[in-house]
Amino acid sequence: MALPSSIGTHQQLGDYVRDVEDWPKVGVTFRDLTPLFSDSVGWRSVIDGLCQNVVHLGVDIILGVEARGFVVAAPVAYALGVGFVPVRKPNKLPAARISQSYDLEYGSDALEMHSDAVSPGQRVLIIDDVLATGGTAGATISLVDQLQGQVVGLAFVAEIEPLGGRPRILDTAPDADVSSLVVYR
Amino acid sequence: MALPSSIGTHQQLGDYVRDVEDWPKVGVTFRDLTPLFSDSVGWRSVIDGLCQNVVHLGVDIILGVEARGFVVAAPVAYALGVGFVPVRKPNKLPAARISQSYDLEYGSDALEMHSDAVSPGQRVLIIDDVLATGGTAGATISLVDQLQGQVVGLAFVAEIEPLGGRPRILDTAPDADVSSLVVYR
Repeated sequence: MALPSSIGTHQQLGDYVRDVEDWPKVGVTFRDLTPLFSDSVGWRSVIDGLCQNVVHLGVDIILGVEARGFVVAAPVAYALGVGFVPVRKPNKLPAARISQSYDLEYGSDALEMHSDAVSPGQRVLIIDDVLATGGTAGATISLVDQLQGQVVGLAFVAEIEPLGGRPRILDTAPDADVSSLVVYR
Repeated sequence: MALPSSIGTHQQLGDYVRDVEDWPKVGVTFRDLTPLFSDSVGWRSVIDGLCQNVVHLGVDIILGVEARGFVVAAPVAYALGVGFVPVRKPNKLPAARISQSYDLEYGSDALEMHSDAVSPGQRVLIIDDVLATGGTAGATISLVDQLQGQVVGLAFVAEIEPLGGRPRILDTAPDADVSSLVVYR
């Protein structure tokens, strides 16, 4: 699962990312990963790179966070031969579920997971596209805790380091392996 | 990419599906695919089965429809070595985009795609989890038409045949290959 020589470094993966100014609001630069995913070489490099970062963790199940997290978590679960579980926004999952709220800049939101999606003791990997403040990652860790699973790792395509997500995650899950393919410092 | 012998038929894949009564509203039976995706053997069988159904189409790019379509479209794009494009609900994509509205039972909704996501003449495959009335599939075909791409196929995990999605798709894209792994008659 080595990266192709044409995209050998994180810097080169980052070249595919499109910076969109003033999105979703004025003053914010949004890191748009869609050009990286729509390119066949870039897309394969992203999934192979994520696999390379997590294969040593020996995970039982992989969680993806709605909606962009689904895009990267599902192929990694397929490539590693483990099942995929969706973590969804409120009132999207049809069967018995658990919920965890988390704070936003203004107000709060929540994430949900089916109650039978993780078994006690399972080694769980959480994958999302971008690590920003760590709010959704923290809520997802709490969902896994509620079901007595063990979060052994969190993997991201891109990390916006100044927003402090990584230390927040490690406060909640100090033994988790946290990795990102592209880091914005 | 043969199906594992333990899940050799569509019937057996369907055994993993959870029927949820009265969801999302009274009188509807929802086909919940999440137990199929969270089982490592079921999950691999789904993606391998989708690949088997579409590999002969020689596609250039694969589109997944938000949000559950992302879950199945992205791994197939990875497995077949082509790029992935998200088709999203309104106001989710950050860059220049095109839009297509479609009718719901009451009212209407819309889907969007980045304007540069498909090039003229590209062979496009659309993947979603469930084919019901074909409303979102039809809107996605129209998005591809707007960018002068060629929809060569649509692939689904499950198809609810009485809702008439397949003939509606074939009205719009008569040459498209339409396949489903599990058919509810």
